[in-house]
Amino acid sequence: MMKINTLAFIACESNYEQSKTVLFGAPYDCTVSFRPGARFAPNDIRNASYGLETYSPILNKDLTDYQISDVGDLEFAFSNSTKMIDGIYQQTKQLLVDDKCPIMIGGEHLVTLGSFKAIVEKYPDVHIIHFDAHADLRDNYLDEPLSHACVLRRCFELIGPNRIHQFGIRSMSIDEAYFAKDNVNQYEFTKANVTECFASLNNKPVYVTIDLDVLDPSVFPGTGTPEPGGVLFQTLMDAVHQLSELNVVGADVCELAPHYDHTGVSSVTAAKVIRELLLALNN
Amino acid sequence: MMKINTLAFIACESNYEQSKTVLFGAPYDCTVSFRPGARFAPNDIRNASYGLETYSPILNKDLTDYQISDVGDLEFAFSNSTKMIDGIYQQTKQLLVDDKCPIMIGGEHLVTLGSFKAIVEKYPDVHIIHFDAHADLRDNYLDEPLSHACVLRRCFELIGPNRIHQFGIRSMSIDEAYFAKDNVNQYEFTKANVTECFASLNNKPVYVTIDLDVLDPSVFPGTGTPEPGGVLFQTLMDAVHQLSELNVVGADVCELAPHYDHTGVSSVTAAKVIRELLLALNN
Amino acid sequence: MMKINTLAFIACESNYEQSKTVLFGAPYDCTVSFRPGARFAPNDIRNASYGLETYSPILNKDLTDYQISDVGDLEFAFSNSTKMIDGIYQQTKQLLVDDKCPIMIGGEHLVTLGSFKAIVEKYPDVHIIHFDAHADLRDNYLDEPLSHACVLRRCFELIGPNRIHQFGIRSMSIDEAYFAKDNVNQYEFTKANVTECFASLNNKPVYVTIDLDVLDPSVFPGTGTPEPGGVLFQTLMDAVHQLSELNVVGADVCELAPHYDHTGVSSVTAAKVIRELLLALNN
Amino acid sequence: MMKINTLAFIACESNYEQSKTVLFGAPYDCTVSFRPGARFAPNDIRNASYGLETYSPILNKDLTDYQISDVGDLEFAFSNSTKMIDGIYQQTKQLLVDDKCPIMIGGEHLVTLGSFKAIVEKYPDVHIIHFDAHADLRDNYLDEPLSHACVLRRCFELIGPNRIHQFGIRSMSIDEAYFAKDNVNQYEFTKANVTECFASLNNKPVYVTIDLDVLDPSVFPGTGTPEPGGVLFQTLMDAVHQLSELNVVGADVCELAPHYDHTGVSSVTAAKVIRELLLALNN
Amino acid sequence: MMKINTLAFIACESNYEQSKTVLFGAPYDCTVSFRPGARFAPNDIRNASYGLETYSPILNKDLTDYQISDVGDLEFAFSNSTKMIDGIYQQTKQLLVDDKCPIMIGGEHLVTLGSFKAIVEKYPDVHIIHFDAHADLRDNYLDEPLSHACVLRRCFELIGPNRIHQFGIRSMSIDEAYFAKDNVNQYEFTKANVTECFASLNNKPVYVTIDLDVLDPSVFPGTGTPEPGGVLFQTLMDAVHQLSELNVVGADVCELAPHYDHTGVSSVTAAKVIRELLLALNN
Amino acid sequence: MMKINTLAFIACESNYEQSKTVLFGAPYDCTVSFRPGARFAPNDIRNASYGLETYSPILNKDLTDYQISDVGDLEFAFSNSTKMIDGIYQQTKQLLVDDKCPIMIGGEHLVTLGSFKAIVEKYPDVHIIHFDAHADLRDNYLDEPLSHACVLRRCFELIGPNRIHQFGIRSMSIDEAYFAKDNVNQYEFTKANVTECFASLNNKPVYVTIDLDVLDPSVFPGTGTPEPGGVLFQTLMDAVHQLSELNVVGADVCELAPHYDHTGVSSVTAAKVIRELLLALNN
Repeated sequence: MMKINTLAFIACESNYEQSKTVLFGAPYDCTVSFRPGARFAPNDIRNASYGLETYSPILNKDLTDYQISDVGDLEFAFSNSTKMIDGIYQQTKQLLVDDKCPIMIGGEHLVTLGSFKAIVEKYPDVHIIHFDAHADLRDNYLDEPLSHACVLRRCFELIGPNRIHQFGIRSMSIDEAYFAKDNVNQYEFTKANVTECFASLNNKPVYVTIDLDVLDPSVFPGTGTPEPGGVLFQTLMDAVHQLSELNVVGADVCELAPHYDHTGVSSVTAAKVIRELLLALNN
Repeated sequence: MMKINTLAFIACESNYEQSKTVLFGAPYDCTVSFRPGARFAPNDIRNASYGLETYSPILNKDLTDYQISDVGDLEFAFSNSTKMIDGIYQQTKQLLVDDKCPIMIGGEHLVTLGSFKAIVEKYPDVHIIHFDAHADLRDNYLDEPLSHACVLRRCFELIGPNRIHQFGIRSMSIDEAYFAKDNVNQYEFTKANVTECFASLNNKPVYVTIDLDVLDPSVFPGTGTPEPGGVLFQTLMDAVHQLSELNVVGADVCELAPHYDHTGVSSVTAAKVIRELLLALNN
Repeated sequence: MMKINTLAFIACESNYEQSKTVLFGAPYDCTVSFRPGARFAPNDIRNASYGLETYSPILNKDLTDYQISDVGDLEFAFSNSTKMIDGIYQQTKQLLVDDKCPIMIGGEHLVTLGSFKAIVEKYPDVHIIHFDAHADLRDNYLDEPLSHACVLRRCFELIGPNRIHQFGIRSMSIDEAYFAKDNVNQYEFTKANVTECFASLNNKPVYVTIDLDVLDPSVFPGTGTPEPGGVLFQTLMDAVHQLSELNVVGADVCELAPHYDHTGVSSVTAAKVIRELLLALNN
Repeated sequence: MMKINTLAFIACESNYEQSKTVLFGAPYDCTVSFRPGARFAPNDIRNASYGLETYSPILNKDLTDYQISDVGDLEFAFSNSTKMIDGIYQQTKQLLVDDKCPIMIGGEHLVTLGSFKAIVEKYPDVHIIHFDAHADLRDNYLDEPLSHACVLRRCFELIGPNRIHQFGIRSMSIDEAYFAKDNVNQYEFTKANVTECFASLNNKPVYVTIDLDVLDPSVFPGTGTPEPGGVLFQTLMDAVHQLSELNVVGADVCELAPHYDHTGVSSVTAAKVIRELLLALNN
Repeated sequence: MMKINTLAFIACESNYEQSKTVLFGAPYDCTVSFRPGARFAPNDIRNASYGLETYSPILNKDLTDYQISDVGDLEFAFSNSTKMIDGIYQQTKQLLVDDKCPIMIGGEHLVTLGSFKAIVEKYPDVHIIHFDAHADLRDNYLDEPLSHACVLRRCFELIGPNRIHQFGIRSMSIDEAYFAKDNVNQYEFTKANVTECFASLNNKPVYVTIDLDVLDPSVFPGTGTPEPGGVLFQTLMDAVHQLSELNVVGADVCELAPHYDHTGVSSVTAAKVIRELLLALNN
Repeated sequence: MMKINTLAFIACESNYEQSKTVLFGAPYDCTVSFRPGARFAPNDIRNASYGLETYSPILNKDLTDYQISDVGDLEFAFSNSTKMIDGIYQQTKQLLVDDKCPIMIGGEHLVTLGSFKAIVEKYPDVHIIHFDAHADLRDNYLDEPLSHACVLRRCFELIGPNRIHQFGIRSMSIDEAYFAKDNVNQYEFTKANVTECFASLNNKPVYVTIDLDVLDPSVFPGTGTPEPGGVLFQTLMDAVHQLSELNVVGADVCELAPHYDHTGVSSVTAAKVIRELLLALNN
């Protein structure tokens, strides 16, 4: 009758050695400009995952049939973004050396930079699929280049133009809008556009970064910078399911700030996105 | 100027004797596996109903034009599901003897079993229309056969295959998926499918059970086991309105847990579903 | 490094004299029948506006390019609706004398009456575009003619039949329904209907009143009388953008009650509606 | 097993005719200057009373041993304070004619004026015991003489100096402070002071008005104008128990605004104050 | 930099074999009559414990200096109190066989019965120290003998009169009051009374059960049945510290229902009580 | 009737030139280890101040009688503590050059370091009065020397032993306890100890830093690291009032995180502490 307590995401308790996919948490939120709290996301998502089944009726797959491990959270000294990015870089690099597909749970969006630095070293021709409400393409924010509002700009600097594919963007400054026009591919977030974009990426390595505020705030209010006018859950789900057609070499899911949504729905939503992502990436 | 306080659902204050339709509450939530609180639903829904009009513009009907009574709540000793089911069974049976159409406000979904036991005695050829996010077809949950996760399985045992028609199911275990394939009818929740299913049931007696978590959690966050990816309000409303074409002999509305939604919207939503249900079933 | 604090809506800090558009707040909620709190809306919306960009990607316009001033809030002695209406009337009249386009942030919906009284004096042939869940056409509410449930009826009395165009109405009494049929134009809230209605108004002066509960409660739970079954954000946005085709001589945005939505999303939503409204009305 | 639902305060279901004490609710909050919501107090208190026992260990008395009836709520057209005061006056007068001791549940504090007008007609030599954080002695508030900030000043005008005895006052304007010095008796809220004050009132008729914000906000956060530095629960309880020594001819309990305290503790606290008050006044 | 995630209470990660004290969770709340949610307490307390230091300045002891293990939670089929009690009984019995001091984290108060059954078998002369707002001495609650409202009565039946010592009781039915007078020792909760009572128990084995609602609801609002008028934190702390003088053979801490207190303070308070309890019992 | 909106603390709208006391906000919270959100404190406190009177009955003083200005907030690039400290240092230095008494509203407690650096330059013999639950004397926190857990240690390094006087400390690591014993003066927070300590400081310059979590979490739950067992409001008030006897050359009030307390009471409490502080320091 005694249950062994763990802090792993539901059904992600395989041995590290045998696992093809490895989850880890990056509970950092110190560059958030508006409402902090994303640091609490990884554990909240793990707890919420136990309110879900391990089986996905749409994919007709069950998490218990795959080798996935959840290795826990990185620990950060707060207010030092450089050290944070380096910690995530080291962690991701190790996972890549060990031939794992890294799945990171943020934290704010700046965490992506650490992971992507390691990814781009191994896969120099990598593309980015980016789901978000915000373009995150500022050159700096209040003179700070390491900010969640600049993270895709920093990634851009590592790979150059036309390698970032953005879906769901509905907020940016006018400067970002000008920059985006010439340097990244912004798509209206429709199923047809996802299909078209994914088809063009066919065999190339792809990194996926999901800022959950791409969802409408009605669906996902628990986030630092809610932006009305987003997509419903099914639109994001369809895109996640289509990721199974791509060569995904790493991914992250960011920007849940659970304290702003006392209903708990945002945390369950994040957990379901991760479940479907894990199932889409494993065959 | 003195108002006589009552605890009835808005405009459901007719005499029991003259009423064709009778509402009662079943404030039980002891088998809930994840988040309890549905016990508070009946009174919360009654209070919230006073934020609505008695008139439905879509149906062009007004509650004040029909004979409906709200006889209050059953009282349960907590943690005894067998007694609870029997209490609901006795209550429903009496209403059926008195030729009333029973409308039960849960409580968690296991309450349906008590009501349906009485229904099936009077209407052995009854079918079930089931709106829900979860299939509720488990054989048992943690070795317990009387659980809200098993309630449709228990109902199935009373009527046999192809008599349960499910809409909106988006979560189940793999075992339930196998069971469902052979034994119940699962429909994607679209207007066309509702029309098709209802047409096939034409003159048969029908019991309707609405687990409100069939709605998307953005629309209805105040529930014990929120499951992202549900239908919007209008889809459920359309189906409820179409119930007027069927021979409905009883119904229930379950799984509001009001304490999880401090906005009060979930309670108002439950109240509006009940208002439209009462109007659809009365002519 | 020292920031001068202001309480203005984001980027609405132009001089009064140079401004074509002038925002002001009307923090009154004393006739609210169900849940009060709209008095807190103006400041909450101003604070929330700083979580948005000044640039609208859809309109490709930036608030910083226009002359708009926010002159702050009127102050009311509570529980005196007649004085409140007169205060708003005087304020609006002055703005019209000074040739400004007045944009009022409520407060409850009764505030519209004060503003509209001044508008109709200057523009006797004005029409009203009214977005709302509730018809607000009661002759009185609990014997009180000055109530947020009666405000469009009072406006109707100033301009007569067929000058009020309502979108999104999904709740009214049967008496209001009868009245509406003969006296106002109610449209289902679709893009086609908006286009058709707006086309018919072409050069006439138009006053726009947006009760934010026209939005579905999933999108906008922070309101006094949430009514399930409303439109999603995009539908309202499309209509607001189309206002740029009309001769809008004044507008208001009402019925945010921020304390009911602890996620803060309702306040951000109200702020975004106002940003897009300001951009749509300025060219 | 069927429970008859009522909305009465726990164990206050005696016949009106046989009752010596009669409870009624006055759900009005339209003059509240800061945070409204006291209109929801009466029903919330009734619901919360069912979380308490009917027996008081300290008084060794049980509510079920006394004849008390709860006649429900008055209904008000909002935003008309004059009508509200008159409605309460009429209700209280009728209760006094019928020889009942009226106990009113507010609502905001202005409701006291209606009740006290009737009291002073029957008992011209009545004194007031007033528990509150705020003196409520302003001559007017934003030019409005009928405000919850002025209610004791209005009562003062009916009975003259040295007949109001205030405990717990810790907030007032400097003008109120000057007025209070000459016209009312302000006591530090200690047991010794309560004893001394009560002793001086011995056989005179006394009206008791309890603004629950006299309690420290830690004990009672659910109120419109929380004022740090108040008394703990036991201090108020001791004073309420000592009321049994006085000739209390009427009482009220005001200013719970339940929506601000999601823990529900403020509502339970209000209910316990009323239970002990009812037991102290009945012998 | 990689943190190994655990679900243990802070600094309670010793090996089971070496540990003298063993923590386990009992997440059951199915007999709760008013507001459920105590099932979420054990994990919430563990999470909150990381907001505390391991060092207690008052006791001048540090958790890291003692051998304590946290073995996780028991798993229960909901709504079966008999099985739940038996599961806890078996668990406690095993700990006693292994010569551990069991510390259980509830859950609702009925969990005590399972643990105490095992305790009384090993220590037939055991006494109970009981901190609570409620006497929990009912013979049954709504005909149910296994209820959190009856748990001390069930314990009483195992050990007979004058072996239960209650502190802080401020709510009971009149029947419980009569029963208590003859059969248990109720003390006003003062330091002097604690000293006197503990002195009388000197060498006898003692079981300690702490229902956290003994604290005032201002200090601990996150509980199912808040009862105004409780003790402040320091009073309970002093008593817990004095437990170091007794021969404590087992203990439990019950009735946190974390969802009712969104501030998180109740969970931190529960965690601090447990930290001090662990330090007081270890030397 | 038009109110000019400002964002100043109530009645702190004097000209900078004429003001003796100057308030400013420091909305930074990036080194917070547990729960962030103190960045929102300054504006929340200003808003809450309007729920208070300008007059203090205990001090018999009114804010409107003194020359105080509120110059608004500093703006920070997030996640750069060095720049933040320097910004506050420059701001405080300017105020000291202009012969103002600086009163800073945090933010987290690390902001004190910026202000104190400027203070110690002008007043090398300054002492610190420190009210807090936590000693904040760590040498570093997760290898980071600039953390709110280390701020008094950093201040200590500027002035040396026996110049820091701490009240209310109830949480620290064992290392901090050892350090404190030799280097700072820790007092139990009683009126007698405050009197004794203050007497010993008589004519020396004193900097006052109030971490509001010195208050018990029941009184002040809206903070990042609540620690049960703190003082009640009156104890802190008495100490603040006694500051009028000292030569206070600067002060700050820190660690309100308003989002954790939806009742709003914590914000009002912070505002009242500041009102009384301003009145105590002005004569």
